[in-house]
Amino acid sequence: MPNYRLDLCYDGSNYNGWQKQGNTEKTIQGRLEAALCSLLQEPVEVSASGRTDAGVHALHQVCSFRSAKQIDSIEFLPMLQNSLPRDIGLLSLSTAEPRFHARLSCRAKTYEYHLWNNTTPNVFRRRYSVTIPEALDLSSMKEASRLLLGEHDFAAFCTGKPKKSTVRRISDISFRTEGNELILSFTGDGFLYNMVRILTGTLLEVGLGKRSVASVRDALESRNRAAAGFTAPAQGLFLKEVFY
Amino acid sequence: MPNYRLDLCYDGSNYNGWQKQGNTEKTIQGRLEAALCSLLQEPVEVSASGRTDAGVHALHQVCSFRSAKQIDSIEFLPMLQNSLPRDIGLLSLSTAEPRFHARLSCRAKTYEYHLWNNTTPNVFRRRYSVTIPEALDLSSMKEASRLLLGEHDFAAFCTGKPKKSTVRRISDISFRTEGNELILSFTGDGFLYNMVRILTGTLLEVGLGKRSVASVRDALESRNRAAAGFTAPAQGLFLKEVFY
Repeated sequence: MPNYRLDLCYDGSNYNGWQKQGNTEKTIQGRLEAALCSLLQEPVEVSASGRTDAGVHALHQVCSFRSAKQIDSIEFLPMLQNSLPRDIGLLSLSTAEPRFHARLSCRAKTYEYHLWNNTTPNVFRRRYSVTIPEALDLSSMKEASRLLLGEHDFAAFCTGKPKKSTVRRISDISFRTEGNELILSFTGDGFLYNMVRILTGTLLEVGLGKRSVASVRDALESRNRAAAGFTAPAQGLFLKEVFY
Repeated sequence: MPNYRLDLCYDGSNYNGWQKQGNTEKTIQGRLEAALCSLLQEPVEVSASGRTDAGVHALHQVCSFRSAKQIDSIEFLPMLQNSLPRDIGLLSLSTAEPRFHARLSCRAKTYEYHLWNNTTPNVFRRRYSVTIPEALDLSSMKEASRLLLGEHDFAAFCTGKPKKSTVRRISDISFRTEGNELILSFTGDGFLYNMVRILTGTLLEVGLGKRSVASVRDALESRNRAAAGFTAPAQGLFLKEVFY
């Protein structure tokens, strides 16, 4: 069966995340599969590079699916877009290598976390950032972020008890500002459940002077969730890029 | 009675505009007055620099009100913000000159119209811009915009039949791009009902090659609404600044 790669973005505000659950209406996967099934007149299963949690956004998500049909992308893409709600945006559709699989072929991902760092909240960014009115000690945050780089057991930085390995490699953590917005960017070979949000929460606690830089290394070594920081809210998190 | 000036911003997506109507819940004025009345325990009437239509946003709106109470802004502003929904953001509150009136004292205003000019729609800007997938002839749009500068009878560029004068002075129309977003900025001493949206619609028709530059002068001279362009949708329009 022909294999397809579909690139898309979405505003996660109104969804229970990527992964299909009982109520398919409220997941991205559910909406996509329903639209594809209806247009292609066959059952279609869509795999993404990874699940995004409830309320998390994607600037660029990649998924793959197989279909018995030969799909002409130029003709099909606008039809598929028209069967989707306005908070899911299609970027491209192409034929993929037979062995390409959005999740299994993925080598690395970049996530961004958006903080609105001002005493005046921004009503236009309220769904896409978290407001931090206090001044942040950026140099301590950067120092702490360097302790997280490389391969570590991130057991302290995930929610729940994963059955598989909790070792991951973070290749880059960078900081940039756009006006009053502070954006943290994390690139790694994979991220555990809630990992980027807990990394962000921990770095925020450093920036607010609520914990020391050294405590971040202690948290990492403890492999104990309680030693790391809070889970930053979903609405500030964006899947930015997927690498194959 | 002490006179107060309140500066604010709002996301107009969920409102029937600024002006209080039967259902006060769904207007900015209604929500503000209800919050002020409840906190100050007295009837309060709020005047804005001008009404914004249903779905129109404000990056910076100014309003004024009188109260028998002496209000301490530092203490009161966070309380007022807490009684308002998250799509209304307060910027500042200060005591105003006795004769200050947000609408009557206003000398000029700047409105911005945001166009997402790309074949791929941006799901994160869907509430705050209008998507134009076609390429726009910016130099023709600029040429046409210059015909609109200065004092003119803008009867062709408003909805309805106003009883008062339809003469207004536009002091500036400028264009800027931010990534894929094209932003039209209009500054003038006052704007008629729907005027910025019809000016934008007319300039867009020029940019799309649907009408000539000269037709804009004809429309102006005709004083006939049918000779001007379409009314661009509310969601792209922002009140940007009010001058006193």
